[in-house]
Amino acid sequence: MDYAEVLQQIAHELAPVIGQGKVASYIPELASVSPHHFGMAVVTIAGEVFTVGDARQPFSIQSISKLFTLVMALQLEDEKVWTRVGREPSGTPFNSLVQLEAENGKPRNPFINPGALVCTDILCTRYAVPENAVVEFLRPLCGNREVHYNRAVAASERRTSHRNAAMAHLMKAFGNLNNPVGEVLDAYCRHCAIEMNCVELARAVTFLAHGGTHPAGQGNILSTSMAKRLNALMLTCGTYDAAGDFAFRVGLPAKSGVGGGIVAVMPGECGVCVWSPALEPSGNSLAGSLALERFTDITGRSIF
Amino acid sequence: MDYAEVLQQIAHELAPVIGQGKVASYIPELASVSPHHFGMAVVTIAGEVFTVGDARQPFSIQSISKLFTLVMALQLEDEKVWTRVGREPSGTPFNSLVQLEAENGKPRNPFINPGALVCTDILCTRYAVPENAVVEFLRPLCGNREVHYNRAVAASERRTSHRNAAMAHLMKAFGNLNNPVGEVLDAYCRHCAIEMNCVELARAVTFLAHGGTHPAGQGNILSTSMAKRLNALMLTCGTYDAAGDFAFRVGLPAKSGVGGGIVAVMPGECGVCVWSPALEPSGNSLAGSLALERFTDITGRSIF
Amino acid sequence: MDYAEVLQQIAHELAPVIGQGKVASYIPELASVSPHHFGMAVVTIAGEVFTVGDARQPFSIQSISKLFTLVMALQLEDEKVWTRVGREPSGTPFNSLVQLEAENGKPRNPFINPGALVCTDILCTRYAVPENAVVEFLRPLCGNREVHYNRAVAASERRTSHRNAAMAHLMKAFGNLNNPVGEVLDAYCRHCAIEMNCVELARAVTFLAHGGTHPAGQGNILSTSMAKRLNALMLTCGTYDAAGDFAFRVGLPAKSGVGGGIVAVMPGECGVCVWSPALEPSGNSLAGSLALERFTDITGRSIF
Amino acid sequence: MDYAEVLQQIAHELAPVIGQGKVASYIPELASVSPHHFGMAVVTIAGEVFTVGDARQPFSIQSISKLFTLVMALQLEDEKVWTRVGREPSGTPFNSLVQLEAENGKPRNPFINPGALVCTDILCTRYAVPENAVVEFLRPLCGNREVHYNRAVAASERRTSHRNAAMAHLMKAFGNLNNPVGEVLDAYCRHCAIEMNCVELARAVTFLAHGGTHPAGQGNILSTSMAKRLNALMLTCGTYDAAGDFAFRVGLPAKSGVGGGIVAVMPGECGVCVWSPALEPSGNSLAGSLALERFTDITGRSIF
Repeated sequence: MDYAEVLQQIAHELAPVIGQGKVASYIPELASVSPHHFGMAVVTIAGEVFTVGDARQPFSIQSISKLFTLVMALQLEDEKVWTRVGREPSGTPFNSLVQLEAENGKPRNPFINPGALVCTDILCTRYAVPENAVVEFLRPLCGNREVHYNRAVAASERRTSHRNAAMAHLMKAFGNLNNPVGEVLDAYCRHCAIEMNCVELARAVTFLAHGGTHPAGQGNILSTSMAKRLNALMLTCGTYDAAGDFAFRVGLPAKSGVGGGIVAVMPGECGVCVWSPALEPSGNSLAGSLALERFTDITGRSIF
Repeated sequence: MDYAEVLQQIAHELAPVIGQGKVASYIPELASVSPHHFGMAVVTIAGEVFTVGDARQPFSIQSISKLFTLVMALQLEDEKVWTRVGREPSGTPFNSLVQLEAENGKPRNPFINPGALVCTDILCTRYAVPENAVVEFLRPLCGNREVHYNRAVAASERRTSHRNAAMAHLMKAFGNLNNPVGEVLDAYCRHCAIEMNCVELARAVTFLAHGGTHPAGQGNILSTSMAKRLNALMLTCGTYDAAGDFAFRVGLPAKSGVGGGIVAVMPGECGVCVWSPALEPSGNSLAGSLALERFTDITGRSIF
Repeated sequence: MDYAEVLQQIAHELAPVIGQGKVASYIPELASVSPHHFGMAVVTIAGEVFTVGDARQPFSIQSISKLFTLVMALQLEDEKVWTRVGREPSGTPFNSLVQLEAENGKPRNPFINPGALVCTDILCTRYAVPENAVVEFLRPLCGNREVHYNRAVAASERRTSHRNAAMAHLMKAFGNLNNPVGEVLDAYCRHCAIEMNCVELARAVTFLAHGGTHPAGQGNILSTSMAKRLNALMLTCGTYDAAGDFAFRVGLPAKSGVGGGIVAVMPGECGVCVWSPALEPSGNSLAGSLALERFTDITGRSIF
Repeated sequence: MDYAEVLQQIAHELAPVIGQGKVASYIPELASVSPHHFGMAVVTIAGEVFTVGDARQPFSIQSISKLFTLVMALQLEDEKVWTRVGREPSGTPFNSLVQLEAENGKPRNPFINPGALVCTDILCTRYAVPENAVVEFLRPLCGNREVHYNRAVAASERRTSHRNAAMAHLMKAFGNLNNPVGEVLDAYCRHCAIEMNCVELARAVTFLAHGGTHPAGQGNILSTSMAKRLNALMLTCGTYDAAGDFAFRVGLPAKSGVGGGIVAVMPGECGVCVWSPALEPSGNSLAGSLALERFTDITGRSIF
């Protein structure tokens, strides 16, 4: 498969829609990003790298970090994670409290905010500086030893995170948070503010296309069975409450963030990452979703 | 892949759990079925058939009919179907009215009862006797020209279908049902009462493993793109509100029914059907779910 | 208290707002009523009658009939009524299904549609022609032996009552409806279509201001204790989901209908009825609510 | 009316049920109170005092403080209060987040926790030490210059107030809280921990039975109209989600607290307070509710 050509074609076709949609505006640092960026990268399990556009420009990974905190929580606690967080699509917006209250403080899945707060809580119990642990986990995985989080973004997000605080306190009330709410929120806002580019993110997820083993010799990240299951979870829950539609249109396991990035996995083949900051109402990158839809259309490959 | 041996192994391993769970009891005809049945069939796109146990014994397909009424609705109205029914997991039980009311009478997806009622309504508009149209659609697909629905089961179900009537009237109030409520419910209860066996159902879904074309020369059922998308929809929405967990554990597109049947699709490979009447609390066959989980474990194949 | 003067003053003050709001439009017969009507009547327990405006013009009592079907149900089943319907404000619109589903088919109170359907069901069990029983109950109470229901209104409402049908079927599914859904809906639509004027309605509720005994010699309708309790129920639940605000502003037990009528009770003193067809968004008569607010302001009397 | 005899009779009749129900257990200080206390006091607008049982023993007023913080908020902001908090019964438990989220952070009424947090926020804006302002407001009103809050109870409650913190953060996220969440919660937990006895509380509410003017010369607390309206609000919203049932059975405006106290108002006549720590499932004192029901039965007086 000539991914170079595929990416060129996608960038060409999508040029008219780049900038449509709305950049996330709840913190000034995200709101100031230009909506006109577009980058995409494919990293195969053989290590080949294909790019188009702004694929080397770092952006705020935001909710994509939920994928990595889940992987780290699974490494620490394995199946025990599922006693504290479910594996079902939420059917409601990512930051809704309704379900959390109705279901006794157990989040529906690890890819909505309260679920990621539980994973962060697991990291807080194990690591003195959990955000640094996430960064150190990512550096070898993505091949960039300079990856870090943006302190200004983290601080700005922390100041406005009242809804996340509400969810964390509610889980605390139900006994589903072990560390102080403030510490969990600090760590959460910081790992959301990690900055990476498309190539780094595509490379970081190649182990999910490769049975849980990092193709570039970083060893076993997860068991084959758990890697496959994580892909299933991304498919059903990875793109907020548009997951059904996303699976329908794209047909690949994926995780998105409000910074405009989306990572996707083609099992047995490659990791993919696309970035374009302007979002659909559901919170997924508008051009990014379309790019992935075209990717499976043009290559004729999806998991279905 | 030696499916004969795989099926033998599954049947052997599952013997201790057959009969655990609870047979659907809301109508006498279903409640009287023995919980101790277990059958499983694989039909490859090359036409090979593998079976174990009660794979040739007919049972009530119940909600598996939702898959076929959706296919027929898509044949009639193509993408227009999605203006009346969504493509998202529901996050609530299959017969809940909450979401339907909150979302103006548009069901979340075609695999929950109100969504299937909309598909049935589309058939009612096109066919004088829609349940017969479903039966006639299925006969060549499954290779049995005698397939029919059980009139006693249909009548019994119709008498107790007050919750379905509530949903149908609510959709009618929102303008999302074109035919009289009574007619739609009649047709719905009848196609739910269709009786087929595991081999017939596994064969009937092979077109979904084969790009939308029936492998045994029955022609194009759906476009390749639509067939893949239907698989995605089954994965995210096909097993009631346990779809996330099912995808996580099994990793195959599937549709279940309260009669204890589950059909699944291995893209590019085969259709699968398992039947065992005793159910988990979520409404899926307990032994059937475990059998499919073992199937992907033993074969090492899933879509992820 | 010179009620004649009070009514004059109210009519004078409210003249500018008569016609503001929106006439109920869900059936043609109601939609065609002019929004410019305004009538008000006071009938004291001594039998004095005071009127202003269109107080002698009959209108469709609609949900005010819920008060009378409840009284009849209490006469038949006394406290047993409360095993099937609650006594709490609903907190949601009068025709919502959410609560009904969450609370196993037991309506919150008898003044929302599903609660009134339960009362009607009780009448259906006792009377061959329940709507006639309601009419015959009302005739001596209101002093007009010609009171009847409007067949065209009833038929029109019946044709469009899909939401009520949804609620009735849902209650039937929960075992909280004893008679066939169609029969209950027929009776319900007919007693909603009863036509009375302000004087008749004010007189009909004087027993609630008089310890349960009809002041004009029609005997005991309810015990003193039950009459007081019914007043409490009207105060907390009688004006749809604006009951709290209505109690706050008006301070009298009251029951409203989408025909634009509102009956109110001044304990120990009089029955009151106001009619003006244009409604607030909550479904209560806009001018009627304001008239009752002025009534308690000017007289300096309320129950608080 | 010989209230002394009425109270004796009530105490006698209720003796068998004292101690039934469950003392609030969420903080140790409340859990350790004996369930066997029972006290009741009537203070007439003429200043007469009638008591029975433990009417002079102080207890934690808890949610009864919501009544007084509302009065203080109304004194400061008058009708502007209603732009931030509603006047409708909630239909859901007092500490539910569902409605708060669905209605954009505006609490249904000032007698549920989030509504009281808004009133406390108003006091935080005006007073440097808001809990002291509440105490100073109460001292002349109740006739005891030593009234204070219990620091151990307040601190204990503050440590476990994660659900209140969740609600406060959610309102902050919606822009309906002006002061820092921590400060509002501090003040809230402290005014809930105020300790008063039945006589003091009955006296403190006499102004609501007296047109807003304190009968013992402490001046106008509220306008007559606002006092009546506050009574209406207590009737529809004062006893958690049992308000409808309470109005039905008791027929008096009332406000309860999980410390086991309930204050009630007989307009034109007296203030009443009953205390017994064991609660019904709805959070109201079990014996206290029954005592007030007997009070209106025996005196033959209620507002209806």
